[in-house]
This record gives sequence, C-alpha cells and structure tokens, in this order.
Amino acid sequence: MSRFAYVNGRYVQHKKASVHIEDRGYQFSDGVYEVIAVFNGKLIDFDDHFSRLGRSLNELELKWPIKHKAMIVVLKQIIRKNRIIDGIIYLQITRGVAPRQHAFPEHLNSSLVITAKNLDPFEFDAAKKGINIITTPEIRWQRCDIKSISLLGNCLAKEKAIRADCYEAWFVEDDGMVTEGTSSNAWIVSKEGKLITRNISNSILNGITRLSIIKVARENDIEIIERPFSIKEAKSAKEAFISSTTSLVKPVLKIDGNFIGNGKVGKLSTKILDYYGSYLKAQSI
Amino acid sequence: MSRFAYVNGRYVQHKKASVHIEDRGYQFSDGVYEVIAVFNGKLIDFDDHFSRLGRSLNELELKWPIKHKAMIVVLKQIIRKNRIIDGIIYLQITRGVAPRQHAFPEHLNSSLVITAKNLDPFEFDAAKKGINIITTPEIRWQRCDIKSISLLGNCLAKEKAIRADCYEAWFVEDDGMVTEGTSSNAWIVSKEGKLITRNISNSILNGITRLSIIKVARENDIEIIERPFSIKEAKSAKEAFISSTTSLVKPVLKIDGNFIGNGKVGKLSTKILDYYGSYLKAQSI
Repeated sequence: MSRFAYVNGRYVQHKKASVHIEDRGYQFSDGVYEVIAVFNGKLIDFDDHFSRLGRSLNELELKWPIKHKAMIVVLKQIIRKNRIIDGIIYLQITRGVAPRQHAFPEHLNSSLVITAKNLDPFEFDAAKKGINIITTPEIRWQRCDIKSISLLGNCLAKEKAIRADCYEAWFVEDDGMVTEGTSSNAWIVSKEGKLITRNISNSILNGITRLSIIKVARENDIEIIERPFSIKEAKSAKEAFISSTTSLVKPVLKIDGNFIGNGKVGKLSTKILDYYGSYLKAQSI
Repeated sequence: MSRFAYVNGRYVQHKKASVHIEDRGYQFSDGVYEVIAVFNGKLIDFDDHFSRLGRSLNELELKWPIKHKAMIVVLKQIIRKNRIIDGIIYLQITRGVAPRQHAFPEHLNSSLVITAKNLDPFEFDAAKKGINIITTPEIRWQRCDIKSISLLGNCLAKEKAIRADCYEAWFVEDDGMVTEGTSSNAWIVSKEGKLITRNISNSILNGITRLSIIKVARENDIEIIERPFSIKEAKSAKEAFISSTTSLVKPVLKIDGNFIGNGKVGKLSTKILDYYGSYLKAQSI
C-alpha cells in the first residue's frame, strides 16, 4: 500500500514528497514540529499538541500555514489515506522558501509537511520490561522549550546512547542537574516515594505525555513535585522512568550502568504506566 | 537566464531543485555547509574551505557524498552553468534520507546540494563606510565550531539586529565575553593598538576570512592576539570590525548605540581591509 504525505496543499506519494532546497527548514532548521499519537484511529491529546504547536510558532514568530479547521481536515485525511490504526502523525512547519539570508524574509508563506505511519499496537506489558540509559553533557541551545527542528544535539546524544546499548540519554548540566532526555522527559521517585520531574523553563520541552502524567497522577492522589533534580539524586533514587508520545512511560533500570533502586521496574512507575494506559484507552473510544 | 543547482548527482533548474521531506537536514538539521566566494570566476580560499568542511563532516561522523575530485568538477560546472563572475557558492551536505529516528541510520548516502549566485562586484570602498551592531545573549549550543545547518539561534539574533537597524549581532556569554557574530567573526583593536580576536574553541566557528586576515596581518608585521575579549572591552576599544566570506571586513562604528573609538572607520581596520582586498585579488588572477 502506498503511503501518502501532505506537502504544502497537496497529498503526494510519500516516496516522492519533497521540499525546495531553499526551504528555511533545510538551510537553517527554522521550523517546529509535533508528533501526535494515533490510538485506535483517534488522535491522542490533540488539543494539547495544538496548543503547544501554537506556542512554538509564536515564540519563533512563525505563521500558521493554514487555518486550524483546515489542519484538522488534513490530519483526518492523512490518517484515512494511510489507514492508520495505531501509529503516529508527524507534522512540521517551517518559515518557508526564500533566498538564503539569516534574517526573516518578509511576506513568506510557511511550509507544512504532514506524514503518518502505522506502528505495532502499543504494548503496555512490553513497556514494563524497562530500559537502560546513559548521561551526556547538556550542550544544546537555551531554548529547548521550543519544539524546533534544530535537533542536532539531540541526535548526537541519542546516537551515543544507542552505541552504549542504551535506549536513551539524559542531558546533565554543568552543575549536575538533569534537564531531559533526547526525545523524552525525565522522572524519578525519591527515596521518600515522591514523584519528581523538572519544572518547565527554557531548558526543557513541556512534553504532552509529561502533562498527561501530571494530570492522571493528580487524579489518583499521587503527589508530583516539579523541580530540578541532580544526576546524583537520580542515581540513588528508588525508581526512574522516561515519558514521551512514542515511548509512553518506560521504567529506567540502569543509569550509566548503575542499577536504580533494586534494579527492577518500580511500583510507582508501573502504577503511572497503568493510569496512563487507561487514560489513552479512554480517549480512543 | 535559468539558475542551476546540483542536487544529489543531477544538475537541475534552481526553482525546481528539491530534497525529500525525510532528508535529515530537514527534520534534524543533521548536516553541514560552506559558503565559498567566487571572485573574477575563481574560487577563493578553496583549500581552506574544503579542509574545514572535512573537519565538520568528521566531527559529526558524516560521510563525504562524492570524492574530492568529483566535487571540484561539480563546483566548476556550477560556476560555469550559472555564469558566476563575482558571487558565492553554497554547498550543503546532510546525513541523507531515512525514516525519522534521532540516532544515525546505517548505510546511508549523504545528500549533497550546491547552489550558486552572482553578487555585485565586491565594493572595497563601500565596505569602508562601516556598520552598526547590537549584542545579544549567547544562547546557542556548545559546538559552534562545527559549521552545521543548526542555525536557528543565529537567525533569531540576526533578525533582532535587522529590527534594530543594525547589520549584525555579537553573541555575549553570561560572563560578558564576546563569542562571535551571527555569521561573522568579531575583532577589536585595543587602546594599545593590538588586534584582538577570540581564540578558536568549541564556542566559535574558525572563519576562513578570519584565518586569511591572520595570515595577511602577520605578513605585514601586524601582531594578532587570539584571546576572548569582553563586551566592555569592545565598547571601549579603539576600533572594531567583523569578518566573513560574504561581508569581507566591515568596520564597526557603533555597538548597542555607543560609538567605538572616535566613531569613524579606524586606521587599522582600513589597513586590514586593504591587505585582505589585495590578497583576494591575487587569488583571482
């Protein structure tokens, strides 16, 4: 079956989908993106993704390429044309095509690219096996709150993790504080059993799964503390996990080769994963 | 007259030149580039640009898309096809096209895009008019030594400069030290008449024009001190200027609205510009 992409007003075969070489996304990483999960054919946390997309566009003074309503029509078409049941939508907006110059060109139409792909059905039980991670110095720019396509630092760190047979890398600042993973947010459960994740600032992306976990945890009377934590604290924590749209909630068993807690998937991590699973299923009905 | 671009093995009309939406340059800014001046039909400082390109590729573990000799053939063809007399060549290499995932995909062919454009003949006298600049906090990543296409921070700062009716912005670190401009290196002449520019490190790009200025200055017995300088030192300097492939040497008259020295184009800046002009002309014969 052919895959289809949406590129600037047209539905095209994915393999033939292209953008101009002077698209500012290609020359300057001057653009933003969202990855939205589709579960049972339904877009998950759509409003939250759209509101964050609006914020990213706003911070970079990028224009919406098409109206909100039209965007929803396109997303539904892309899900239908690609017959997505469980999978993801990738949506990218750049400042558009213009002769190369760093400053923003005037009167430019933003570029919009949307792709979709099926994934295996979410495996909530498989997630419970846990993952290993490494740490890496935080060398990225100081506006990681913007979901921009300027992701070279993230790619380098992820590659480092893969080469160390790990699933993810956590960025650690000069002062020893953890910011986030290369494509996920970072969580720990303190010795006292408190659930901790870094507060939002310019240093981290406010993950939609992060927000949903905060919501379901609070609904289930689990206290969440939003504050920076150090890698030292993480390594001596009771539990740790990561969260993201594609990884959902994944318990961390080892950081830099050191077992976290008893080296098994923690109780609170499992609870959060279960609550989050129910939350996803409720949206997909 | 039609403009031509070279895209992955083919010469195509510039307006139709495109890359796949899953080129990692478009989704991750996973690529590097060079801008090479053409003066009187000749490539300027070609070996230096190529050696820096090799270093950038190496740092990111990117592969050369074609062999050195083939690249030279393509560059000459692009100059010929576009009838470039005075202008620039833009050359971009990315990790290639692959389904989106942060880590490096295996067995991927790098993408190569080359464009060219004519510019007005270099105006050495016009350069002597000088420019005004602003300062902006250094928020970019910590590998600015790699000439990557991850340039969003540079674009935002350049836009800020343009809105302040200035030509360029200098990045200033938390401790008050100047790194470089958004697309140029930064120079000052101290009260004692010493020519100062920041030493190379991960914080700045080692500009080819920077290197050439060091070369011609030394040939003319002008001492150069390579060390960090603060914005305070810059504002009370005798002279200041910027250097880059497209801007050559441009004297700075004002920083953040404050006159530098007597507010006129400095003697040493003029000398450097003259020496550099002769150096360019010698190569173009």
